[in-house]
Amino acid sequence: MPRYDAPIRDMQFVLHDMLEIEKYSNLPGFADAPRDVVDAVLTEGGKFAKEVLQPLNMVGDQQGCVRSDDASVKTPDGFPAAYKSFVENGWPLLATDPEMGGQGLPKVLNMAISEMSSSANMAFSMYPGLTHGAYEALMAGASDELKAIYGPNMASGEWAGTMNLTEPQCGTDLGLIRTKAVPQADGSYKITGQKIWISGGEQDLTENIIHLVLARIEGAPEGIKGISLFVVPKYFVGEDGSLGERNALSCGGLEEKMGIHGNATCVMNYDDATGWLVGDENKGMRNMFVMMNEARLGVGLQGLSQAEVAYQNAADFARDRLQGRALSGAQAPDKPADPIIVHPDVRRMLMDQKAFVEGARAFAYWTALHGDLKDKSPDEKVREKAEDYMALMTPVVKAFLTDRGYKACNDGLQLHGGSGFTREWGMEQFVRDCRITLIYEGTNGIQALDLVGRKLAANGGRAIFTFFAEVDDFASEYGDVAELAPFLEGLKTAKGQLQEGTTWLMQNGMTNFNNAGAASTDYLQLFGLTAFAYMWAMMARTALDHAGSGDPFYANKLKTARYFFERVLPETGAHLAKVKTGSEAMMALEPEAF
Amino acid sequence: MPRYDAPIRDMQFVLHDMLEIEKYSNLPGFADAPRDVVDAVLTEGGKFAKEVLQPLNMVGDQQGCVRSDDASVKTPDGFPAAYKSFVENGWPLLATDPEMGGQGLPKVLNMAISEMSSSANMAFSMYPGLTHGAYEALMAGASDELKAIYGPNMASGEWAGTMNLTEPQCGTDLGLIRTKAVPQADGSYKITGQKIWISGGEQDLTENIIHLVLARIEGAPEGIKGISLFVVPKYFVGEDGSLGERNALSCGGLEEKMGIHGNATCVMNYDDATGWLVGDENKGMRNMFVMMNEARLGVGLQGLSQAEVAYQNAADFARDRLQGRALSGAQAPDKPADPIIVHPDVRRMLMDQKAFVEGARAFAYWTALHGDLKDKSPDEKVREKAEDYMALMTPVVKAFLTDRGYKACNDGLQLHGGSGFTREWGMEQFVRDCRITLIYEGTNGIQALDLVGRKLAANGGRAIFTFFAEVDDFASEYGDVAELAPFLEGLKTAKGQLQEGTTWLMQNGMTNFNNAGAASTDYLQLFGLTAFAYMWAMMARTALDHAGSGDPFYANKLKTARYFFERVLPETGAHLAKVKTGSEAMMALEPEAF
Repeated sequence: MPRYDAPIRDMQFVLHDMLEIEKYSNLPGFADAPRDVVDAVLTEGGKFAKEVLQPLNMVGDQQGCVRSDDASVKTPDGFPAAYKSFVENGWPLLATDPEMGGQGLPKVLNMAISEMSSSANMAFSMYPGLTHGAYEALMAGASDELKAIYGPNMASGEWAGTMNLTEPQCGTDLGLIRTKAVPQADGSYKITGQKIWISGGEQDLTENIIHLVLARIEGAPEGIKGISLFVVPKYFVGEDGSLGERNALSCGGLEEKMGIHGNATCVMNYDDATGWLVGDENKGMRNMFVMMNEARLGVGLQGLSQAEVAYQNAADFARDRLQGRALSGAQAPDKPADPIIVHPDVRRMLMDQKAFVEGARAFAYWTALHGDLKDKSPDEKVREKAEDYMALMTPVVKAFLTDRGYKACNDGLQLHGGSGFTREWGMEQFVRDCRITLIYEGTNGIQALDLVGRKLAANGGRAIFTFFAEVDDFASEYGDVAELAPFLEGLKTAKGQLQEGTTWLMQNGMTNFNNAGAASTDYLQLFGLTAFAYMWAMMARTALDHAGSGDPFYANKLKTARYFFERVLPETGAHLAKVKTGSEAMMALEPEAF
Repeated sequence: MPRYDAPIRDMQFVLHDMLEIEKYSNLPGFADAPRDVVDAVLTEGGKFAKEVLQPLNMVGDQQGCVRSDDASVKTPDGFPAAYKSFVENGWPLLATDPEMGGQGLPKVLNMAISEMSSSANMAFSMYPGLTHGAYEALMAGASDELKAIYGPNMASGEWAGTMNLTEPQCGTDLGLIRTKAVPQADGSYKITGQKIWISGGEQDLTENIIHLVLARIEGAPEGIKGISLFVVPKYFVGEDGSLGERNALSCGGLEEKMGIHGNATCVMNYDDATGWLVGDENKGMRNMFVMMNEARLGVGLQGLSQAEVAYQNAADFARDRLQGRALSGAQAPDKPADPIIVHPDVRRMLMDQKAFVEGARAFAYWTALHGDLKDKSPDEKVREKAEDYMALMTPVVKAFLTDRGYKACNDGLQLHGGSGFTREWGMEQFVRDCRITLIYEGTNGIQALDLVGRKLAANGGRAIFTFFAEVDDFASEYGDVAELAPFLEGLKTAKGQLQEGTTWLMQNGMTNFNNAGAASTDYLQLFGLTAFAYMWAMMARTALDHAGSGDPFYANKLKTARYFFERVLPETGAHLAKVKTGSEAMMALEPEAF
């Protein structure tokens, strides 16, 4: 059975050494997170992930969730107890608003805790993850009354939340939603329709489930401009906060899926269920997007999380499995064969994984820190930049970290040879679980379109120009540090290519939108690689600062940085070449020619 | 539920137009395969695959195989009847030696039929596939007596065959085999040991199962030089060919796997089972390699086969699913949304798949044709070249077609969005089934090592220099055809990069073997891309010859060729850059630093 140990040392490196989060102690929340508190939180989070969540990961996969004839859903053995413990330990409240009972610690710290839970048990961690997303959507748009009714219990995890978007005829294109809402005299609405792929739509973890549902109010405009958001609780909540009657909604079935079997993916039927409007009529998408952006970062993190746990187990296997001899001569002559870690091609997979997970962690946390600054900085310019970055980077974090995270999971499986394909080693579960991350919360293709079609052009390209300038400043600031030269060289090349791709898009994507669409995925990959190059250059710079400490961690960081620049970054050239070919060859065939 | 229709038109294009197999009608077997016979075989093969095998594919996945307490194994419902029909229709005999009852038709034609079976039902087609591999190993080394006893019934598929290599402590490194063979007075051996991952080790499809088992004769030299090959039947065969007593072997369990659930992957226990030596003592690896090379081509074909069926269903989905509007304006204004095939990023996935499956088919069949020429050509130089190519190309076909085939399956799943992740659409089964192809018959990393460590250097590099010269000749022969210019340009660039990589390997891989190991996978990818470029250039040339026919098939072939050269081939540069970085960064970390 696989193991998981939270990579606390690397998390500390990113938080303390690279991002230096202590320097924001003037900001709310950060003030309560000095280094010793952060380290204690990381240690406790790692313990909980390893001891409580990880042992349930394979059980969850094998048992899955079971729906009974009465439409109730049983989660895998151990999940309810683990969830209870998760709530009792206060983990959902870590970075939540103090006015809803939260501790209000930095979101960037919460990213580390979320990474741990997700590495240990992705299917489990989706229950609190989506609850938090629903909570954020509610906070973004609901009336104070609704917030007061649902907020505190969702914040603490006592109640769960879900997001109801998809219907059989509409996934990406939410303008096609048919679920209808009929206004009632008392100000509530009757909601009727079917929603599919609702994660945690029904379960036995919480007393109540608060569904956020997109629906169309009778007579609303066609398409996306006629969609409203409703809060629809499973059980009604009395004035005193007690649970009352059951609402007219139920789980009509569970999806059979490739992975994340421990999470109940429900068909939800609303049959004149009572709901209340969140925010304004026909403005449902606005609040949903608040939640969705946050959720997209979370999905990127899932990609990293599965890669991390796959990597850890691959490294164990590579050290333990004896097979063949090193090409350079026996390394363990006393054993029947050498451990396979002596073979360069095995190293290639491990180094690819290591360069990915460490780069991804830096990128995800760096982005999350901007999420904190966006909300908390007293400096308007800092807030503006942080908001720009969050918008610009979110699709990149989501798609790049899941694409490459999936590759890393596959490398972990591959390194195990035949064992990787069997259930008992657990590697194939990481691949199956991770697979969904490339799809949900907007497929990676949709992320790429969001990037080139919306995020690049926003405010006249302010966000990306700020990013280019930041990279340039970094490169010139450290331009005379000899040890950084190869890294800065690579960074400058990648940034130049990204700039070239951006210019090409501006010149060719506006006049022919198909050129933008045809370039989008490769442009996003080029962006992700460049962002990683910046992260690795910053990490190398930081490691160099600590080189005198004698801690081999820093020397190893520099070696991994070198690997990234030599062995991963060269892929940028092909992506740029593809971006610049345009859409002609891609669109040349008639649909029936496929 | 997914569908499968054999891509007969494209198979005809490769066989008749590109490879022009009719021009080999002077060779045995080819003489019996004029165009109308080939087309009839393709049609019948396609019908059998579509009507008999494909409907059982999802059933096989969901039911899997079941072992009873008596150690018997039940395959999924419908498999035994389909297998009976497969044998009665004579499919196993298509390209088998006439002296064993076969029809002796060209192997290249058999590739097309194998592709169909495997696309329709990969788990099913492994039963006859491995039987054929075992049959080949037997034919390569066994005495005439053993051949007479087992050959005809294995050739026809009446009996099945298996390959027993792996043990718990040894997969790639077969020198670690512990299964022992003790010589008996009557010339037979008593075989004792445990073998794992034995595909079809036990089943209910055939009356007898002929196991080929690698074992160590008592007192044999250590390591790979002490391994012998034995034939160990499940039931002994009497003088009259009737089945007698049961041998002392049994299935100890079934592996739980990620995919190919319809194929029984067995733990096989040999407990003083009686076997007979195949070939010479301690030379077991030689005959096993005969089988293995053939099997490796077959695994490459599996990668293609799963990509093909995933592609077909992805194209259907892209034409049917309505979601969003074309960036260039509504294409189906009468419908609530446009079919998603209007979106460039959806096209990207379809075109990647199409460029892959058509390139892979050409490459696999072209290589298989060399397999025919190697055995059948009267011209010694042709035979030598064909043998060189078979040796050189086999690891490339195996690894490149499975790596990229897996990617194509994943693209098919991705294009389906959330539906791709659910069981009912069948896309995730293609991904899970295909996943094993990157591993078995030698992991893709082992293929890469075989290529750089053995195949490149054989006979002073004769094979690859012949290939380079062939590409050069092609490029200069058609150098003045304007329509081919962009394709020849791409081909020459890729070939130049492969040559540069080869030179780098020769200069740096011999003095430091780790450099060869570190470069191997990227070198293989570079090789595969270059081989595909050659295939696509040949296909473009062929299509251009037929451009006057008015058949849109040829115009579409040229459009897909253009896509390949613009959108796929640019990846060569990154692989070359990685090849040339050497092993230093890859090997820099201590094992415990991972």
